[in-house]
Amino acid sequence: MTTTTDLRKTVETFWATAEARDWAALGETLAENIVYELPQTRERIRGRERNVRFMREYPGDWHARIERIVAEPGQVVSWVHVTAGVEEMYAISFFTGDEHGRIATMTDFWPEPYEPPFAREHLVERY
Amino acid sequence: MTTTTDLRKTVETFWATAEARDWAALGETLAENIVYELPQTRERIRGRERNVRFMREYPGDWHARIERIVAEPGQVVSWVHVTAGVEEMYAISFFTGDEHGRIATMTDFWPEPYEPPFAREHLVERY
Repeated sequence: MTTTTDLRKTVETFWATAEARDWAALGETLAENIVYELPQTRERIRGRERNVRFMREYPGDWHARIERIVAEPGQVVSWVHVTAGVEEMYAISFFTGDEHGRIATMTDFWPEPYEPPFAREHLVERY
Repeated sequence: MTTTTDLRKTVETFWATAEARDWAALGETLAENIVYELPQTRERIRGRERNVRFMREYPGDWHARIERIVAEPGQVVSWVHVTAGVEEMYAISFFTGDEHGRIATMTDFWPEPYEPPFAREHLVERY
């Protein structure tokens, strides 16, 4: 179960070092050949250096707070609450780990608010 | 570890029975007092009966296929590929279980395609 514990801890460190803008420590959480994918834009970023740079260059005064983490051996999902000024978003990220407990793959989803797509008020309350 | 296995299995059954339109079997996967939330629309649906009805009334010829599941004791996340005619979507769902291995809470995210929000082509390939 070391692997579970390690990758969960790695993901917690990933978000903590991102929040702290500690790019060297963030780089330590990533495998040298990490592959990061964003299915919504169909973008892919390969390698530790480019991924650290992507995070470092991400504009805005953003802050990330973990809402929930679900982990099993070799796989972790984080649900993160992100704020940037008045904007609020969620990021859902799927991680897999390598044999050193570093992040081997990361796949992010950024869902946005939308209006209920069909008549379902008879079943629903709004919050 | 029974709980992990059970809730993972329950979530697999939830999606399989939804795909099969087997509403009685789908209802069996849900706790009587299940709470389902959609943070993007801020909708909440309480109780087994209303949740089965929500699924039953969901329009369109939709099909759901599990892409990935991550499970730990009492918590499961599914990443599901949904098609409805020519439309393709992902659903990311966070589940918690009750003591019988039924779904106690479910929180869904439905991310949609968007354009890359800032200049990052120097780091990125598109796929």
